[in-house]
Amino acid sequence: MRAYSKQWVDDQPNFLEQQMLETALGIDIGGTFTKFGLSDVEGNVLMEGSIPTYTHREIKPFLDALCGAIKANLKNIKEPIDILGIGIGAPNGNYYKGTIEHAPNLHWKGIVPFIDMLKEYFDLPMVLTNDANAAAIGEKVFGGAKDMNDFIVVTLGTGLGSGLVTRGKLIYGHDGLAGELGHTNVYPDGRECNCGKRGCLETYASASGIKRTVFKLLATNNVETPLRSYTYESLTSKKITEMALQGDPIALEAYEYTSDILGLKLADAAAVTSPQAIFLFGGLAKAGDILIEATKKSFNEYLYPGYKGKIEIRLSELMDKNAAILGASALVWSEIVKTEGLVIPQQSKAV
Amino acid sequence: MRAYSKQWVDDQPNFLEQQMLETALGIDIGGTFTKFGLSDVEGNVLMEGSIPTYTHREIKPFLDALCGAIKANLKNIKEPIDILGIGIGAPNGNYYKGTIEHAPNLHWKGIVPFIDMLKEYFDLPMVLTNDANAAAIGEKVFGGAKDMNDFIVVTLGTGLGSGLVTRGKLIYGHDGLAGELGHTNVYPDGRECNCGKRGCLETYASASGIKRTVFKLLATNNVETPLRSYTYESLTSKKITEMALQGDPIALEAYEYTSDILGLKLADAAAVTSPQAIFLFGGLAKAGDILIEATKKSFNEYLYPGYKGKIEIRLSELMDKNAAILGASALVWSEIVKTEGLVIPQQSKAV
Repeated sequence: MRAYSKQWVDDQPNFLEQQMLETALGIDIGGTFTKFGLSDVEGNVLMEGSIPTYTHREIKPFLDALCGAIKANLKNIKEPIDILGIGIGAPNGNYYKGTIEHAPNLHWKGIVPFIDMLKEYFDLPMVLTNDANAAAIGEKVFGGAKDMNDFIVVTLGTGLGSGLVTRGKLIYGHDGLAGELGHTNVYPDGRECNCGKRGCLETYASASGIKRTVFKLLATNNVETPLRSYTYESLTSKKITEMALQGDPIALEAYEYTSDILGLKLADAAAVTSPQAIFLFGGLAKAGDILIEATKKSFNEYLYPGYKGKIEIRLSELMDKNAAILGASALVWSEIVKTEGLVIPQQSKAV
Repeated sequence: MRAYSKQWVDDQPNFLEQQMLETALGIDIGGTFTKFGLSDVEGNVLMEGSIPTYTHREIKPFLDALCGAIKANLKNIKEPIDILGIGIGAPNGNYYKGTIEHAPNLHWKGIVPFIDMLKEYFDLPMVLTNDANAAAIGEKVFGGAKDMNDFIVVTLGTGLGSGLVTRGKLIYGHDGLAGELGHTNVYPDGRECNCGKRGCLETYASASGIKRTVFKLLATNNVETPLRSYTYESLTSKKITEMALQGDPIALEAYEYTSDILGLKLADAAAVTSPQAIFLFGGLAKAGDILIEATKKSFNEYLYPGYKGKIEIRLSELMDKNAAILGASALVWSEIVKTEGLVIPQQSKAV
């Protein structure tokens, strides 16, 4: 996947013999931080950095800061590189329009024409989709789904995101916004969701969801647990995971409750797309077997019997890697480079 | 879409000037009857017939009877025709393998290699999928989804079937068996389903489901209704629909209950694939507005707000047509003819 860059060759004939490394720039926009990084087709990260997202209430100063940081970081790369494109993962990212639409966790309201605005800073091919879709493509290019055409990636972060792949391609739907498993209905009169509905899956199966469950369990049980010394604001899902791994009964029960609901709704999603595997990713997935085994049990209980034994529930293989950057840059390898006729190595190794 | 048939021309030089009509043979296997018919690319049905399914406990005598009836009917067609292929819609049909797998409503148990067996009777290209997938392709080729690439067709018959189309193609999943919306979970401890689980959507939203609901309502309400004079065995969904159209309070409440659950689960499915429209088809859909309006209301209540106002719920446009045959034969136009390089007219008119 190394190639001579035509432009480079034309401009600097002395370097005719020098090979340039083909790279992709990935940008992952989160509610708190925006991460960026440059990687090659094998998933080696050559440069990375981040800026805070939430401190920029307007999009223009945010882009100034982001692109300034990216360009400063690019200058530090010594070897000759060719950037083939920019992949962007963003909450409520619209693939067809290159826009970020009404993202509840970002300050920028309404419809932000992100790619149009980014084009003022970089003259490169760009592709934008929601962060969970980027994670799914990351799993396909660099992770456990390399040889799969039908799979689902579920990201268990502050919310619950999902990217569904069928026939080797993401399901974008008619409007570029498909894949909102987090807003399927668990209890119609249940927990308030940021989306405006009640009882959405992400109010149960997510970092914030498991915290809500812990508080519900603290209210209904008398069992002693160090979790009673936390305020709602100070308790984190990381702490709950730690406590579960140490055997705390409330934390374990919270994971069981979460897994039971998650397994049922994954069984519903599997009934739609019949995937080969479902990959779990994000903070809650760090509980490992505590989450996976209970989710598998529930999943198999609620799964259409015709599918039983055919669908794996697995941890994402990007869990301990630079997943946000790899996911976003995987978009370039999958959606931009491929459409220009280059081929992604089937056995490309992740870092 | 008329063409000279090479074989015809070679064999019968005198008919060089005669155009042959290109046709597709459709076979729809139901639990009670198996229908077959020949149609052209515009959806005109040239021949049709049916044989009982349930009286044939073995597959071989069934195929003898079916193919005998088809061949007898074909002989009666006077004009010169060319049959381009056979499309088969069957419960639990596996698209990849051409098999019928563990269909609960058919006598033939295990995995039936249907296409392999049918090849002994006809030397034609064949494609098989489940009946709801065939209905979805029928909607695309002959019905309301002609200009859509992302839509869902839900068939409300004895059970609830579904065909989901994204990027213009059916979602088959990794094993050819995707699209089992009927077996997504409504109440985990709810009604017994033929699939072995409890509380599946089709135990509520289907012909049998609405009958169960009527009996539940008769048990919990004292309101007078002619429905009290029916046994469980004698009551049909057709009768319930008739009574609802006449304003019977129990029948109307049964439709409301059904629509509420259906709307919620359709909202869940829409969260996965973000379709442009969902088409309802089958016996229950004959209640028209009684079903559609209540389902829309529930659907919009439980739909992810980001999708609101973007997704239509409509009656199938094949409702009053020969849908089973058109759906099965549409498979030929969509999957066989297309792959051989012929083009389906975008504005082909249904009968």
